[in-house]
Amino acid sequence: MELDFTKLDGLIPAVIQDAASGRVLMVGFMNEEAWKVTVETGFATFYSRSRNKLWLKGESSGHRLVVKSIETDCDRDTVLVLVEALGPGVCHNGYRSCFYRTLTNGEWSESEKPTYDPKAIYGGKS
Amino acid sequence: MELDFTKLDGLIPAVIQDAASGRVLMVGFMNEEAWKVTVETGFATFYSRSRNKLWLKGESSGHRLVVKSIETDCDRDTVLVLVEALGPGVCHNGYRSCFYRTLTNGEWSESEKPTYDPKAIYGGKS
Repeated sequence: MELDFTKLDGLIPAVIQDAASGRVLMVGFMNEEAWKVTVETGFATFYSRSRNKLWLKGESSGHRLVVKSIETDCDRDTVLVLVEALGPGVCHNGYRSCFYRTLTNGEWSESEKPTYDPKAIYGGKS
Repeated sequence: MELDFTKLDGLIPAVIQDAASGRVLMVGFMNEEAWKVTVETGFATFYSRSRNKLWLKGESSGHRLVVKSIETDCDRDTVLVLVEALGPGVCHNGYRSCFYRTLTNGEWSESEKPTYDPKAIYGGKS
């Protein structure tokens, strides 16, 4: 039973959830190659839409996502990847989760504290 | 601070997570109108890519998703919606979560038990 990569020009959304805490850490996209690499290596690998190439999450920072379990949905056009996230945070802005802003009275406000200094990891590059 | 609807032809992925259990229930897509309706009504509303129109989740089944909290990610191109899911299940196939299949030794297998009979709710239609 194959995944359906036809709906988003060859991509599927991949929801990354912390296997221990249940926190949703990020959403990336996978093409068929990224999907295969993820399964074969056990490290979450995406297709970077901005750079148009495979993107091993944590390649530069070391903050890799170790795959613990993978689920798919009824339409087989999305995967939910449960991971152990290496390092202090998944978000390149310095947070545990990319979802660090919450809607409050119509405005987005920061709802998590940073867990590391991204400049020390990425040298100021995002 | 607006969301970025430009990356997927006017759509953003919306991850639906059970606010109480942390279970990821489904992933849908919202266009800007669906997003506004979701915020204004407090019920998760999507844009149906197959029917090309707004889709109030639970419109026919009554299994609505009551919005408890909304987060966005660093790129503002995805939302994480924490909900109370009314009814026995979110998936039209009869499961609590649409992610009811897990990859085991390269094969997808059912990893959750059905929670209701979809024929009784949807009359056999999916």
